[in-house]
Amino acid sequence: MQKENTGAGASAGEAAKKETIESAEILTVGTEMLLGDLVDTNTAWISARLAALGVGIYRHVTVGDNRERIVAALREATSRADLVITTGGLGPTSDDLTNECLALATGREMVEYPEAREHVDEMFRRFGRKPTSSNYKQVLFPEGSRLIPNPLGTAMGALLELDGALVATFPGVPTEMKGMFEETLEPLVKERTEGAIVSRTLWFTGIGESALAEKVQDLLDASDPTVAPLAGQGRVRLRVTTRAATPEEAEGKIGPVADEILARLGDYYFGTDSETIESAVGDLLKQRNATLALAESCTGGLLAKRLTDAAGASAYFREGFVTYSNESKERLLGVPHETLVESGAVSEPVAKAMAAGARKISGADYALSVTGIAGPDGGTEEKPVGLVYVGLSDANGTVAERLDLSAWRRSREAIRERSANRAFDLLRHRLLDGGGA
Amino acid sequence: MQKENTGAGASAGEAAKKETIESAEILTVGTEMLLGDLVDTNTAWISARLAALGVGIYRHVTVGDNRERIVAALREATSRADLVITTGGLGPTSDDLTNECLALATGREMVEYPEAREHVDEMFRRFGRKPTSSNYKQVLFPEGSRLIPNPLGTAMGALLELDGALVATFPGVPTEMKGMFEETLEPLVKERTEGAIVSRTLWFTGIGESALAEKVQDLLDASDPTVAPLAGQGRVRLRVTTRAATPEEAEGKIGPVADEILARLGDYYFGTDSETIESAVGDLLKQRNATLALAESCTGGLLAKRLTDAAGASAYFREGFVTYSNESKERLLGVPHETLVESGAVSEPVAKAMAAGARKISGADYALSVTGIAGPDGGTEEKPVGLVYVGLSDANGTVAERLDLSAWRRSREAIRERSANRAFDLLRHRLLDGGGA
Repeated sequence: MQKENTGAGASAGEAAKKETIESAEILTVGTEMLLGDLVDTNTAWISARLAALGVGIYRHVTVGDNRERIVAALREATSRADLVITTGGLGPTSDDLTNECLALATGREMVEYPEAREHVDEMFRRFGRKPTSSNYKQVLFPEGSRLIPNPLGTAMGALLELDGALVATFPGVPTEMKGMFEETLEPLVKERTEGAIVSRTLWFTGIGESALAEKVQDLLDASDPTVAPLAGQGRVRLRVTTRAATPEEAEGKIGPVADEILARLGDYYFGTDSETIESAVGDLLKQRNATLALAESCTGGLLAKRLTDAAGASAYFREGFVTYSNESKERLLGVPHETLVESGAVSEPVAKAMAAGARKISGADYALSVTGIAGPDGGTEEKPVGLVYVGLSDANGTVAERLDLSAWRRSREAIRERSANRAFDLLRHRLLDGGGA
Repeated sequence: MQKENTGAGASAGEAAKKETIESAEILTVGTEMLLGDLVDTNTAWISARLAALGVGIYRHVTVGDNRERIVAALREATSRADLVITTGGLGPTSDDLTNECLALATGREMVEYPEAREHVDEMFRRFGRKPTSSNYKQVLFPEGSRLIPNPLGTAMGALLELDGALVATFPGVPTEMKGMFEETLEPLVKERTEGAIVSRTLWFTGIGESALAEKVQDLLDASDPTVAPLAGQGRVRLRVTTRAATPEEAEGKIGPVADEILARLGDYYFGTDSETIESAVGDLLKQRNATLALAESCTGGLLAKRLTDAAGASAYFREGFVTYSNESKERLLGVPHETLVESGAVSEPVAKAMAAGARKISGADYALSVTGIAGPDGGTEEKPVGLVYVGLSDANGTVAERLDLSAWRRSREAIRERSANRAFDLLRHRLLDGGGA
């Protein structure tokens, strides 16, 4: 316990050294990142949280499990930023070096923290497993550190001053890092920032990035709020950002700009911030007390998966059919055998029959269908990879839309995602037009 | 055309300056990354491709759309590495600065490349749209650059020597970057590397990282081949890596180590390299000419989506049912009403009835089912968020397994992914045991 007090005391004292935190850098540690074994999602998550607190992030750096390079990267980052957050390298194996390198960079000893030993023992008790000797590597921290509790794993983090910058080490496991960040670091950073960066993201579909940018070029050139475009997967977003002391002040600056953007681009707008095309569809269905059924071929469950990524879909999602074979399309959805033979599975009549069948069998108000060639194989001269039909059935009847992504030679994943986006957007427009209600 | 020749000539000449490429750094440009708006997947992809070519990658850096910082990052990277690859900042908007900064860093002029202008015009013709004035920003490159063709988009890349290092700029759109990398840069790097880094990744499930590491600690401590562990989503992988001049030499070094690992950990092994639990299941089903049906509740189509992520699933995937409501479970899968009332939707009997029903209706040899509470809401005292039942039905009967992830307080996504992993692994073991064949 004595160590803990020393640690907490030391860190509290040193933390006072720097009054406000204005800039941060994020250091990812792990050879698996440099080898491309793993995509680093932690850095984006941490960046978004810090940006929301008004902390400017100027650099992300990734280095491997190498003492010299980790120490060098820690020194460079602390020389530039007020706050340096590391993820990774806190595990029990011999190539987990982050806390040891933090000790080297600060010229401190690695000492055992009794609270950490108790935590490791407690975690293993909780899951009924025996700690191995290597697990106790996780009870050593640079002397004077304040520890960051980890309710979900054995790896606690360290909080320590280095060259007047605050360094915080987190494990690489996202669920563990996120909980630790929210419970320990976020409150500490909040106390040491002035105002906050507030931003609103407006989402659009059915228009290209440069065409969209031209319509709002004057706003893109403005400095407060800033407006920045970003495109991908058939969607474009505009992020409106400003710094403000209060939410009211932020709304006063962002609101009018957002209104102006929607006045010019409202036809293409589908959502704000974390809203997706499927969540927009979900909200519209909820408002209308309407239900949806899905019939998927080439997307193979992707629409259903996306519709249920968010909780609460049970309010409007009846059921989904993944009919990957013609036989399934006939038996489960009642697609006529002759239609499949005459037009082929990837055709407008089959897309319509799938949607109509799913709606009839489920009793849902609306049904969406997707049938296409996602590739990489299975394409022909007149039905190339990237040819997709999306169908929509409601009380007014059934329609289908042809979607040709072949010219872009896209990946199977991109073709499936874009097909899903188009299908959801087809229903979104129908719901907005009040059709089938 | 003259520019093109000059450019090609210059770059060819300068390229000769540096004989071999041994080290690389990747520079990502984009404020959206620093704000956490976007997860950078390009860097991992490029890193994996370079590692396979035997190029050592020592650092990933991300900076925003800021002239000074991009120029500084370019100079730092080129002072350390033989090859510097940038992604992002090649778009038509005013905050796309990468090529301009490359010119600043090399003290060169930005000049128009006729081949680039022709390309921009051609791309717009191809998609029947009119270029806007801002699109022609994409025809300017640092003088002396060799251009990297982009068959999928308007943004061509630049290839240029800087301080004896080779710099290559790519757009941030993954599909465009990947095609350009494979067609232009990869062959060039291949010519300038000696031997290659060859690695094999072995995947395990049902054992923790530290327990697994203890069983192969002697191999983890060895230096050639190196063996490195990596854990996540209920799976652990061991990556065996060596440098070799020929595939035969690599196999001679990696083969025996991999065999030794499998001799010790074979019970937990499910695949190699890009194999997933679902692809392992798919291969086993194919070998046995067997078919599979899916009945999903809380995973809402995730199993079907994952099973069809790879092409060719139609050979063994019959159909999938996403029965999100009790009514759907009764009507589509024949789950008895009283079972749902007595045991509740999240229960062993319902998981069994779903699997048995899906198998009967589809006529498939095997059926998997998942029903659980993915959260964040809907948990109760005796049925907490994270409680999941997975069912398996085959010719020998129907079983269900209880999976309790509640202690870990995981995210909805993690609970869904782990439930899918467990369900696929249940079938994998059944197939290996020759059950239900």
